[in-house]
Amino acid sequence: MKRWQDPSWAEEMKLELDANLMMAPPLAPGAGISSADLDRLSPRLTAIQQKLESDREAGRLPFLTVPYQPGLVQEIKKYVRGVKGWVENFVVLGSGGSALGARALQTALNPPSFNLLSRTMRKGFPRLFVAESIDPDGFQALLELVDLRKTLFQVISKSAGTAGTISQYLIVRDLLKRRGGNRKESEHLVVTTDPEAGNLRKIIRGDGVAGFEIPPLPGGRFSILSAVGLLPAAMVGIDIEELLAGARDMDRRCRDKSLWKNPAALGAALAFLACGEKKRTIRVFMPYVDALSGIGDWFARLWVESLGQRVDRQGREIRTGQTPVCALGAANQRSQSRPPLEGPADGLFTFVGVKAYGATLPIPAAGPPIEAWNDLSGHSLNELIQSELQATRLTLARVGRPSLLITLPRVNPFTVGQLLFLLELETYLCGQLLEINPLEQPGVEEGKNLAYALLGRKGYENSIQDWEPFLKTESRFII
Amino acid sequence: MKRWQDPSWAEEMKLELDANLMMAPPLAPGAGISSADLDRLSPRLTAIQQKLESDREAGRLPFLTVPYQPGLVQEIKKYVRGVKGWVENFVVLGSGGSALGARALQTALNPPSFNLLSRTMRKGFPRLFVAESIDPDGFQALLELVDLRKTLFQVISKSAGTAGTISQYLIVRDLLKRRGGNRKESEHLVVTTDPEAGNLRKIIRGDGVAGFEIPPLPGGRFSILSAVGLLPAAMVGIDIEELLAGARDMDRRCRDKSLWKNPAALGAALAFLACGEKKRTIRVFMPYVDALSGIGDWFARLWVESLGQRVDRQGREIRTGQTPVCALGAANQRSQSRPPLEGPADGLFTFVGVKAYGATLPIPAAGPPIEAWNDLSGHSLNELIQSELQATRLTLARVGRPSLLITLPRVNPFTVGQLLFLLELETYLCGQLLEINPLEQPGVEEGKNLAYALLGRKGYENSIQDWEPFLKTESRFII
Repeated sequence: MKRWQDPSWAEEMKLELDANLMMAPPLAPGAGISSADLDRLSPRLTAIQQKLESDREAGRLPFLTVPYQPGLVQEIKKYVRGVKGWVENFVVLGSGGSALGARALQTALNPPSFNLLSRTMRKGFPRLFVAESIDPDGFQALLELVDLRKTLFQVISKSAGTAGTISQYLIVRDLLKRRGGNRKESEHLVVTTDPEAGNLRKIIRGDGVAGFEIPPLPGGRFSILSAVGLLPAAMVGIDIEELLAGARDMDRRCRDKSLWKNPAALGAALAFLACGEKKRTIRVFMPYVDALSGIGDWFARLWVESLGQRVDRQGREIRTGQTPVCALGAANQRSQSRPPLEGPADGLFTFVGVKAYGATLPIPAAGPPIEAWNDLSGHSLNELIQSELQATRLTLARVGRPSLLITLPRVNPFTVGQLLFLLELETYLCGQLLEINPLEQPGVEEGKNLAYALLGRKGYENSIQDWEPFLKTESRFII
Repeated sequence: MKRWQDPSWAEEMKLELDANLMMAPPLAPGAGISSADLDRLSPRLTAIQQKLESDREAGRLPFLTVPYQPGLVQEIKKYVRGVKGWVENFVVLGSGGSALGARALQTALNPPSFNLLSRTMRKGFPRLFVAESIDPDGFQALLELVDLRKTLFQVISKSAGTAGTISQYLIVRDLLKRRGGNRKESEHLVVTTDPEAGNLRKIIRGDGVAGFEIPPLPGGRFSILSAVGLLPAAMVGIDIEELLAGARDMDRRCRDKSLWKNPAALGAALAFLACGEKKRTIRVFMPYVDALSGIGDWFARLWVESLGQRVDRQGREIRTGQTPVCALGAANQRSQSRPPLEGPADGLFTFVGVKAYGATLPIPAAGPPIEAWNDLSGHSLNELIQSELQATRLTLARVGRPSLLITLPRVNPFTVGQLLFLLELETYLCGQLLEINPLEQPGVEEGKNLAYALLGRKGYENSIQDWEPFLKTESRFII
């Protein structure tokens, strides 16, 4: 029996949401949220949940169903077993959510300097590199660092239209042809793309490259629990079965119709009231756990791309969304709490803590001549970081800045799976409360087309004319 | 002759500031800044510059004079030569600006995976680790990763009162006593602290530990060009003489009384008009150069801690400051430009580019069956990232979001020195325009004292009473 199949273990590993410092009181009225505010929202949430269930049944919300794919898990595990013997480096070529998902899982569930560990310490799993950037120096340095003969590249693009990822793929394919070694070029590639359409699918069919499917999800931001995130996770030895079990456990909790028993509904309602109604413009996600920093970057993108929208479903201009800020406590607490404490900024903070870290580090006695430091001795680094977290939350609360606290009992695949699913569903439900479609992606094409036009791509010449007034530069404004 | 002593090389390496997309026109009036706005500010800036010169002469602004310390440079280089033979790992124990400075210089001026390179590839210089976080798991993993017998720890704290750094020091000192090896415990430590005061100075005196001085700078945020940043930089082989030469070159340019010839004065004036007067609440720093991401994190903290202030010099409540956001182009451009393009957010963007990357990566032909991709062939990854940068700036400009573009001819110690000095001085001057003291640090003590009180430190018991209303938690708000 796996540990997550034991109900008492699963209960012990239950993620907890603490809304006390979101509420008024203790926060000043107007700053915090009252129980009455929440009661008022309850019928709308019930209706949204009903719609959600019918959309789920109709297969319109694949991000809710990806955790229920035992077949995919077995397929991925089989693939990893097949290549593990020779792969020393696994390189993800992908942009946006695709890249952030792999990095979030690796940071959360493997040791911090995984790539510096010996192969034995890595239990034979390869080092992981995520090549999101198209900086030529960064990409070149990576290609020089890895021995291509022992390197496997995962190419991730749903539409196969992302210029950066495709360019990286073309550069890598060319190098693989000239690398030497006794494996076919196609063995060094694994493609994750649309099940049917797109040019990457042609490559799977034509060149015999291994392939995994991206379900019909919007952008890459809801794809972390699909093959997009699961393949790299399994590749570096993360227990993806436990990860998905955690996600399913959160899904079960989030089907509850009562707001105060449903973490995603409660999180969405609080975020909607704090940000949507009270017009807070910043959403800070701040774990006091090093391992969760990558999940912060992933969530920032999920939140802003889903909820930053100019018009609602009826086409009315509403301009929703917050600027996402990821920070790491206790390291960044002083700079991140400065604007709300002293400056003008108003934000909603989500803190993430753990009940227990893996290690306990007692602070030894200072001894003479530094008696002043003996106040720290007898405590541990664990107590110190916990008191920093609480102090930050309290100082924010007193000036009327609400914060939500998510606590994981420990960091492991089961609790991380819960957290990821919770954040996805909360984002989706918050979009429904805002009356927008959080699965849409407006405003992206314009920038993409302009970049193509500036690159001189055929068929895009005309689009550049609109920008003429901004393209003229006056040399007196350049120093 | 060093290359930076050659005037024609120095001229070629001159950092450039492009303010075209800050101005109206081309931006809409109200969104951009007019020449008249700047002219109006000019007399105030002249007066500020005069005051700056007299403060500099009186030794009140050490961040301006740190680049002029040939003695310190020689002392650091001598120290590095002395330990280089045996040090395999150099670990910085420091918080805030101290930690960010070391990381910024390492990321900017060494290859991206420096710690993964062999000792030969690192030219015999040690691996660098920056232990800013006090997460027990993160710190424990680091201490297990490095061989203590070959590890040197730099302890950075001006006041020796930072609980996190001191706790790390006590843990490390205890481990060093039990490590084995044939070097004295004191040889594994180098302390950077106040020249006279504080408990760390006592350790230098009492235990014979090597020590460097932190000049009287506020917090750690202005300390990157002092021993705080120079020692770790020299330790990993960065040419600190060239770095300081770049800083001095920028200092020379920034003494010009004409706004349009003085990068720091121009930058400060534009930021003041865009943020201070037009109340923009977000300051985005976004290099399209992987190597400069660490400088973004460092600058974010410099900006917010210097300018996020509740009251001005006269004690009037003004609540200045922006929430700092660091992002990396092209990777984060889509998520970072979403709130200004679609949502409500209003920010000032500073983009940083380079004229030339070190590497050039041509995009090879796609060939059949994927003719569609051939539009990319013939171009390079370099052209692609440059057109992404321009497209992002243009789409922002059209919706009235101003951006400043800083261009480095290349990334090297001389240009990085210019950039760091420019950002420090711009921040300082912007504070003067806001009529605040950017070297102060209000609002920090409250949080620190509360953390101590929560930890049960003697003498802090009373301060906890003020927080009672926020310490009561209702279990019905926890799910």
